[in-house]
Amino acid sequence: MIALKPLHQPPNQADLLLTHEAIQPFIHRTPVMTNASLDRMAGCKLFFKCENFQKIGAFKMRGAASAALRLTEEERAKGLATHSSGNHAQAVAMAAKTLGIPAYIVMPHDAPKVKIAAVEGYGAKISYCVNTPKDRQAALEEVVVQTGAAFIHPFNDFGVIAGQATAAMELIEDTPGIVLDTLLAPVGGGGLMAGTALAARYFSVQAVAWGAEPHNVDDAARSLVQGSVQSNETNETVADGLRTNLGEKTFTVIRKRVPKILLVSEEEIVAAMRHIWERMKIIIEPSCAVPFAAVLRYPEMFADKNIGIILTGGNVDVVGLPF
Amino acid sequence: MIALKPLHQPPNQADLLLTHEAIQPFIHRTPVMTNASLDRMAGCKLFFKCENFQKIGAFKMRGAASAALRLTEEERAKGLATHSSGNHAQAVAMAAKTLGIPAYIVMPHDAPKVKIAAVEGYGAKISYCVNTPKDRQAALEEVVVQTGAAFIHPFNDFGVIAGQATAAMELIEDTPGIVLDTLLAPVGGGGLMAGTALAARYFSVQAVAWGAEPHNVDDAARSLVQGSVQSNETNETVADGLRTNLGEKTFTVIRKRVPKILLVSEEEIVAAMRHIWERMKIIIEPSCAVPFAAVLRYPEMFADKNIGIILTGGNVDVVGLPF
Repeated sequence: MIALKPLHQPPNQADLLLTHEAIQPFIHRTPVMTNASLDRMAGCKLFFKCENFQKIGAFKMRGAASAALRLTEEERAKGLATHSSGNHAQAVAMAAKTLGIPAYIVMPHDAPKVKIAAVEGYGAKISYCVNTPKDRQAALEEVVVQTGAAFIHPFNDFGVIAGQATAAMELIEDTPGIVLDTLLAPVGGGGLMAGTALAARYFSVQAVAWGAEPHNVDDAARSLVQGSVQSNETNETVADGLRTNLGEKTFTVIRKRVPKILLVSEEEIVAAMRHIWERMKIIIEPSCAVPFAAVLRYPEMFADKNIGIILTGGNVDVVGLPF
Repeated sequence: MIALKPLHQPPNQADLLLTHEAIQPFIHRTPVMTNASLDRMAGCKLFFKCENFQKIGAFKMRGAASAALRLTEEERAKGLATHSSGNHAQAVAMAAKTLGIPAYIVMPHDAPKVKIAAVEGYGAKISYCVNTPKDRQAALEEVVVQTGAAFIHPFNDFGVIAGQATAAMELIEDTPGIVLDTLLAPVGGGGLMAGTALAARYFSVQAVAWGAEPHNVDDAARSLVQGSVQSNETNETVADGLRTNLGEKTFTVIRKRVPKILLVSEEEIVAAMRHIWERMKIIIEPSCAVPFAAVLRYPEMFADKNIGIILTGGNVDVVGLPF
C-alpha cells in the first residue's frame, strides 16, 4: 500500500499522479462509453466516464481511498468514520474493509434499508441518529471521541479532491487522439467538480471544466457570482446527490478553475436520465444526468465539440423511478 | 463488403470465422463484464457478454447482417423484408440501412409506439397488420410479392444462426486465460442457442452450451425430450423474447449440441433481472435474465465454475417495469 502525504493546499500535478497510483487497489478502471444516438441528439461528440461501474457504484470510492491513505499508520489503525446516508458512507466502509481497519458510519435511522444493508455488507459499524445536521454532527463527534477513528469528510478535503480528480484523469487518458474541449461534472459539495477542474488543467490539451447544477439547488452558480460560499434554501431536486452546499476548500478550487456552471430544470434532468437509460442501456443516478441535461439545454455551447462527461454513479432505487 | 455464401446446413468453423469477419461493418464489439457481487451470490465466476450494448440494443443485429450478406447482389438490391414487432425488425431495418437498400417491415398495428419509431428511424417502410400469426404471414407475403424483397427469418435460417454464433465467439476470445465450463443462452426460436452451441464446439477448450427457458414457455426443453419440435400452449411470460417455438433448423443444431435446458419460474426471472440491474448497473431485457436465474436456481451445477452468459439485449420499456 502506497502512503500519501496530507494535503494542505490544492493538489498539484505530481500529487494527482501519485494519488492515482496509490488508490489502484481500491478502484476499477471504469470504461469510457460513447453512443451514436445521443451524439446525434446533442449535436456533439460525447465521452461518458462510467463511474456507475465503479466499486460501490460511484466515484466516491476514489476520494475516500485517497483521504484514507493520507492518514498516518497510527491514525489509520483506529479506523475511519463519517456520517452519510449515501455513496460516501459505502465508500468509507469499503476503503476501511480494503485496508483491514474498522469503519464507523453515522446514518439517519430512517435511511433507506438498502443503503444500510450495503454499508453493513462492507463490515462497517453503524450508529443511528435523528436525521438533522446537528444530530448527525453530534453523533459523529461521539463516535470519533469513543473510537479515535479519523473523520473522512465527503468533499471538503484536498485529499478527497485529489481522489475525485482521478476519474477525469482516466477519461482524458482513455480518449487518446481526441482533443476534449469541455469536461462536465455535476456540482454537489464540489469535490468532483474541483478534482475534474484540476485534472483538466494538468492533463488535458485544452479542456476546460464546467459544472452543471439543478436550478433548484444552484448554490454553486450563485457562489461563483457572489465570490463566497452560498447556501441552498431548498433541497427539492430529483438529483439527490447535489443538495449539498460547497465547502471552503472545494470553493477555493472551483472559483479559480471553473468559469461556468450551467443550470437545468427538474424536467430536463429526468428527461436526460431517461435518454441515457434508454439509449446507453446503463443505470445512472439522477445527479449524473445533470451534465447531459445541460448539453441538451445549451446546444450552441457544445456544437460539434468533444465533450467529456463524468457519470458519477448508479446507486438508484429501481423501484419508484422518476419516469 | 464481404459477400457470404448461402448455408444449406449448419455452419462449420470456417463459416463462423468468415461470418464474423463479414459482419464487422454492422456490429459493435460489445464488452464482457464481470461483477464480484453477483459472483458471490452465485458461487461461481460469471462472464457476461453485453449484447445490450450492441447496435439496435440486441444480438439480433448479428444474425440479420449475416443473412443479408448471403443474398446475391440481385436479391439484395430489392431489399429486405420481415415481420416482427421486436428486436429483429430493428436489426433488419438497420442491416438494410447499412447496405443502402430498402427494408420492408410488417408490424402489428398495436405494436409499441417506441418500437415503431425505432424501425422508422432506421428508414424502413412499415406495413401494418392485424396481430395474428396468419395476418402477419399474409401481410409479409404481400410485401414480398409486391417488392421482390428477400424475407429474413428471425431464427430458422443457418445464415442467421451463423451470425448469432459470433456473440459467443467474441465472449470466448475476450476471456483469454479463462477456461469456460458452460455457456448459457436463453432459448426463444433457438437462433442464439444454436449459434452459441456451435461457437462452444468450435472455439472453446471445453465449454458446453446449455439453454435456459421460462417454465411457462418450455417448448425447447420438451422438444429435446420428445425428439421433435413442440409448441407452447401459452405465451404468458415476462420474458417476451422467448415466447416463440423452435424451428426445424435451430432444432437440428440444438438437438445435437445442447445437452440441457434449465427451467426457471417467472419470479426467478424478475429477481434475476433486478439483481443484474442493481449490481451491474446495466439495463437488460427480462429474456436475458433467464440464464442468470438458472444459475441461482441450480447452484450445484455451477459451483466454482467459469460460466459465460449471453446478455441478449436491453430494449425494455423503462416505464412499467416488472419490479
